[in-house]
Amino acid sequence: MNYLNLNKEEANREKARLNAEFEKYKARSLKLDMSRGKPGKDQLDITMGMLDVIANDTDCKSENGFDCRNYGILDGIPEAKRLFAELLGIKESRIIVAGNSSLNLMYDTVARSMLYGVNGSTPWAKLDKVKFLCPAPGYDRHFAICESLGIEMIPVAMTNTGPDMDMVEKYVATDAAIKGIWCVPKFSNPCGVVYSDDTVRRFASLKPAAKDFRIYWDNAYAVHDFDVDNQIKLLDIFEEAEKCGNLDMINYFASTSKISFPGSGVAIMASSEQNIAQIEKVMTVQTIGYDKINMMRHVKYFKNADGILEHMRKHAQIIKPKFDIVLETLEKELDGTNIANWNSPKGGYFISLDVLSGCAKRAYELVSELGVTLTKAGATFPYGKDPFDRNIRIAPTFPPNEELKLASEILCLCVKIAALEKLYK
Amino acid sequence: MNYLNLNKEEANREKARLNAEFEKYKARSLKLDMSRGKPGKDQLDITMGMLDVIANDTDCKSENGFDCRNYGILDGIPEAKRLFAELLGIKESRIIVAGNSSLNLMYDTVARSMLYGVNGSTPWAKLDKVKFLCPAPGYDRHFAICESLGIEMIPVAMTNTGPDMDMVEKYVATDAAIKGIWCVPKFSNPCGVVYSDDTVRRFASLKPAAKDFRIYWDNAYAVHDFDVDNQIKLLDIFEEAEKCGNLDMINYFASTSKISFPGSGVAIMASSEQNIAQIEKVMTVQTIGYDKINMMRHVKYFKNADGILEHMRKHAQIIKPKFDIVLETLEKELDGTNIANWNSPKGGYFISLDVLSGCAKRAYELVSELGVTLTKAGATFPYGKDPFDRNIRIAPTFPPNEELKLASEILCLCVKIAALEKLYK
Repeated sequence: MNYLNLNKEEANREKARLNAEFEKYKARSLKLDMSRGKPGKDQLDITMGMLDVIANDTDCKSENGFDCRNYGILDGIPEAKRLFAELLGIKESRIIVAGNSSLNLMYDTVARSMLYGVNGSTPWAKLDKVKFLCPAPGYDRHFAICESLGIEMIPVAMTNTGPDMDMVEKYVATDAAIKGIWCVPKFSNPCGVVYSDDTVRRFASLKPAAKDFRIYWDNAYAVHDFDVDNQIKLLDIFEEAEKCGNLDMINYFASTSKISFPGSGVAIMASSEQNIAQIEKVMTVQTIGYDKINMMRHVKYFKNADGILEHMRKHAQIIKPKFDIVLETLEKELDGTNIANWNSPKGGYFISLDVLSGCAKRAYELVSELGVTLTKAGATFPYGKDPFDRNIRIAPTFPPNEELKLASEILCLCVKIAALEKLYK
Repeated sequence: MNYLNLNKEEANREKARLNAEFEKYKARSLKLDMSRGKPGKDQLDITMGMLDVIANDTDCKSENGFDCRNYGILDGIPEAKRLFAELLGIKESRIIVAGNSSLNLMYDTVARSMLYGVNGSTPWAKLDKVKFLCPAPGYDRHFAICESLGIEMIPVAMTNTGPDMDMVEKYVATDAAIKGIWCVPKFSNPCGVVYSDDTVRRFASLKPAAKDFRIYWDNAYAVHDFDVDNQIKLLDIFEEAEKCGNLDMINYFASTSKISFPGSGVAIMASSEQNIAQIEKVMTVQTIGYDKINMMRHVKYFKNADGILEHMRKHAQIIKPKFDIVLETLEKELDGTNIANWNSPKGGYFISLDVLSGCAKRAYELVSELGVTLTKAGATFPYGKDPFDRNIRIAPTFPPNEELKLASEILCLCVKIAALEKLYK
């Protein structure tokens, strides 16, 4: 049914039908959660073997002779660096292996720039205005870092090949107050977009007005393809940037949060040797070192990049059907209505649903009323303000399949109700 | 032999004897390390049982129903809060259980004050001048935080009962640029002093000119008595501060770095509920949460405060003989020379050795020449500048006993040579 073309009678009939359904769900007092990109219990279970892989003191000995149980080694044990280097195709000399949170590394990197500047630049806290470009829809926690630190956010539209690079190039070249841009280059949050080769090349060759401009390349879903054997290849940003003499422009982040355990994984930051030297100079004041036993757990359990990919196959087997449940429901319920668009990602953790403009908040209200928790409408935009009030982020991984199906049906129902309310007052 | 009273002939004879010893050691090309407060291998071994205490998914379930493996719970699982609350006598509502490093929590707390201010005060980064009081000799990493962030350090003398409180009270009351003071209230680093009840009460009742003045109470050695059954009691700073209406003035830090594993322990911060609320508001931007599986490891392994104290007995059995080795050597070699004073701590990780004024750097040079690594002379003072060039920090825990004895003998030798060089040119 094309919702855009109903006559009054048809619209009223449909409204009545949907409202009846709504009341039925309401009577069930449900409690369902599709709000965050959290792995489900079955995903957590597949990594349990990691927890007893360190059996004795020999297991705690790094190949450099260092005892992982003790203080020391700021930048991570060499075997952990090598594991990430192999997995992500980054030189070991550019990698810091840290604690359990890449978000923390990102926050620290921005906070460090505020307090110390970037490789000798003026500390941002001393500048009148600092701005970041924020491809949107994007990751709410990136935006929260900017908002918290008083960094002005400029939204940049997302396309099917990545951020609108015409806009990015223009902004970056002309405004020296723009110091950074947030990127999730593979299976972007929430759009599921993999940046095209052209996009990566245009990022690598940016000519920023600000010398301390940095690309915050959050490769959170680097190996999170549903089809692990046919991974979608993201162009190597370091290689491309190096070609353009822009190596220092890249701050790269990744973690095992969605490979091993979300709360107890290992995060890395990678950057040019020059940037790393400055970062470590501050980091050595901040901490004596991160949890090296946990790094060793990851090394011993996964062994190498192939070990991680093998593990990702198991994740994909659990996740893919969850995405299918949501996508099938969206197709069944919303296809042909002309009130919604969504992506069909090949990996990552999210489905991005665009509803009829002006209806996302209302749909969010309605699903909340039925006990379904969604990421707050607007959260995928800077300051929580979706200019079209239309984007809804769906996170299919956490709920059990049955709940997920129910939550998806409820979401579709509420999207329709919201649209009809708007179209036929 | 009283080195202060030698005639020329005696001095030359002693110099010759010591130099001969020096050359003998030099020929051995030793490599010994007494530089950092690092536990030794035998200490690390006693905690190995912690590494396989989490066997299955049930072990990962917090009492609040939360799965420790997943994202979430910013401030730590309730059972970990309770463990620290019981151990340290702090209300659970005032505790944040975090990652592996209390130093990181301290750095973050100062950095947060720079960027966000303290409970509504002007961010320190926007002030012309921020100063901290630094009881000295003190912990070099505290001073490094200040130096790194451009906070001016004002040394305050240490006494046998804690910092010189007359100075502290005067400074704090009269200079609104003074925003903090670093304290290691029990077994202070490096003097081994336990703050007296009077000192704690005077801290609790400070009347700072700056509203955002905070006491950084780094209780790193809270339960690190050599005689665990006769613990030296430190007065409860929260209780005393509350009596004076100064509850917000306390930022308390502790960790299990020297209880479980130095690189893989659990750190906490404690403060008034009002401070904690502000801290968590920023922290929630910084990270989704700390490693909760590791918190659970600590809870399951230690069970309660008694479990930790039982464990501390084992540490004491290993550490105490190491302190004895150093102290016996100091007594044997330096007693009666009148060129050195040292403390005889009842716990903690350090012995503070005061040599003849103007001789610490030279003694450090000499021991370095013989292959012994010490904490750098001066490191225990702000900016690495010991005004009397006399303090040397000895960290007895890391080297095996035999090496420790040798290193202590070498240190005494070099202290004597340096003194004779100065006294009898």
